[in-house]
Amino acid sequence: MAEFDLIDLIRRRCDIARADVRLGIGDDAAVLAPPSGHELVACVDTLVAGVHFPHGTAAADIGWKALAVNLSDLAAMGATPAWALLALTLPQADAEFVDAFASGFAELAAAHHVALVGGDTTSGPLAVAVTALGFVASGRALRRDGARVDDAVYVTGTLGDAAAALRLLGSAREAEPAFAELRARLDRPQPRVAAGTVLHGRASACIDVSDGLVADLGHVARQSGVAIEIDAACLPASPALLASFDAHERIALQLGGGDDYELAFTVPTAQAHALAEDLARSGCAATRIGRVVEGSGVHAIDADGVPIELSRRGWEHFA
Amino acid sequence: MAEFDLIDLIRRRCDIARADVRLGIGDDAAVLAPPSGHELVACVDTLVAGVHFPHGTAAADIGWKALAVNLSDLAAMGATPAWALLALTLPQADAEFVDAFASGFAELAAAHHVALVGGDTTSGPLAVAVTALGFVASGRALRRDGARVDDAVYVTGTLGDAAAALRLLGSAREAEPAFAELRARLDRPQPRVAAGTVLHGRASACIDVSDGLVADLGHVARQSGVAIEIDAACLPASPALLASFDAHERIALQLGGGDDYELAFTVPTAQAHALAEDLARSGCAATRIGRVVEGSGVHAIDADGVPIELSRRGWEHFA
Repeated sequence: MAEFDLIDLIRRRCDIARADVRLGIGDDAAVLAPPSGHELVACVDTLVAGVHFPHGTAAADIGWKALAVNLSDLAAMGATPAWALLALTLPQADAEFVDAFASGFAELAAAHHVALVGGDTTSGPLAVAVTALGFVASGRALRRDGARVDDAVYVTGTLGDAAAALRLLGSAREAEPAFAELRARLDRPQPRVAAGTVLHGRASACIDVSDGLVADLGHVARQSGVAIEIDAACLPASPALLASFDAHERIALQLGGGDDYELAFTVPTAQAHALAEDLARSGCAATRIGRVVEGSGVHAIDADGVPIELSRRGWEHFA
Repeated sequence: MAEFDLIDLIRRRCDIARADVRLGIGDDAAVLAPPSGHELVACVDTLVAGVHFPHGTAAADIGWKALAVNLSDLAAMGATPAWALLALTLPQADAEFVDAFASGFAELAAAHHVALVGGDTTSGPLAVAVTALGFVASGRALRRDGARVDDAVYVTGTLGDAAAALRLLGSAREAEPAFAELRARLDRPQPRVAAGTVLHGRASACIDVSDGLVADLGHVARQSGVAIEIDAACLPASPALLASFDAHERIALQLGGGDDYELAFTVPTAQAHALAEDLARSGCAATRIGRVVEGSGVHAIDADGVPIELSRRGWEHFA
């Protein structure tokens, strides 16, 4: 099957109509009309088989996740997603794989009204690079460098499920009832787009939790010139995670596991309660998990205030 | 070496400062300020080793070409490039490779004042996906669907050098004096950005020649609902190509070879001469190579008007 047919197959699946797409897939480039009074927010993230998703992951889930991790980055800026471009490298022209991939991609794209405006398929080992483009009111993007001493630290949703799924994958414990729920968090992360739009202009700093809470808050701490203290006992956990691991293992997964795609943010203490209430009203509960203090780095303490050794500080590629 | 260090290494090499980059690499996403009165033009193209460049290609040339093929797509829309995002997949963390790659990428980026605003490095088989973003005055983008019967067909520069280099690669003929020139066209294509800005609003249709002249003009013909007739005797050839192949082989390379990254365009005959003169003044000569006629498809004729069999209609991945 020719490259053009594969792109056309994907395009037919992803048929979101947006008036601001002047010219979509099918020319040398897309022509798009950004709204006035806004800034453009742009990011790119690549998924590689065996690195960012387990070998054997369903094609539809790969399509979903490839878009989700990028919408999560836009959410962390407080941006509203609009357009995406897809660079898909495939070992061979497999229309069945592409169709399933496109269906997962399209399902999430439709949920956020994102139009696929550029596509490129090439032959090679399976890899998916998505560029996501969105908008934020000028000057109101959420950044990593705005955390201030005494700010409260929050995280949306729950942490650790995806890492727990990876831990159990391939073991006899896959048969446990909780596994399917954990696996769904790994395969179909929900980008916190609505939460990001509630946070924008209000949170002092924000990041999405992709490499692990400690690693990601480490970026906020370094870029803001502060330290962050995490109350490990406060880390929000799903029932599935609570049913699957004891406190010690659970907290390690939550602090270092990654692939959560929740938003971690800081907010001046005086505004924290109102912001958390607005988030809850938007359908995305957030939990206070710590505070910004003077110093550097990220530190976790247990319920008694005793420091927890962070032996696994998130993961990095090539680490 | 960690992913973050690789991106930082690339960022240091690509240090183009643009006032419209509100927030560059180093947060979840870039924040960019599009100019008013313009549309955003966006494209993505992936290079895979062994498919889009020969194994053993110098890292600096891969970096150059990964950006060049995307700037060529923007040029084909008449757009002025502004920003790029890079998704780099590497077999291992190789700082030397990344540094050389970044130097080639940065050299071309600097020539076109393009800022690298997003980067992602992952471990996996070598592949490079670049998203390029640029601007065109609203409503003036060059498209593929505007060719009209009786328009003249032109191409910038010369055709066939890159295909000739691929043909000679690995043979004893690499020692011929012309090979280095042909190889440079393969490794360091020059995107026709200045020509695109001369053409925009004046050419009736435009496409960049990446898959081969016949294949690419085939898109113009199909999307415009016309046929295109090419005078094979008029195809512009470099001295290096003329020195390396007889007319029969040369024309096959020029019609079907691909990787030229020249602009093929159509223009109403009455305006053709003035447009070609303006192009020449901009430093990019264009040659009249045919005409738009009624019908469908792309047809080539020799100097006597006899049809040429097009056995190799450009190349497609997975074909």
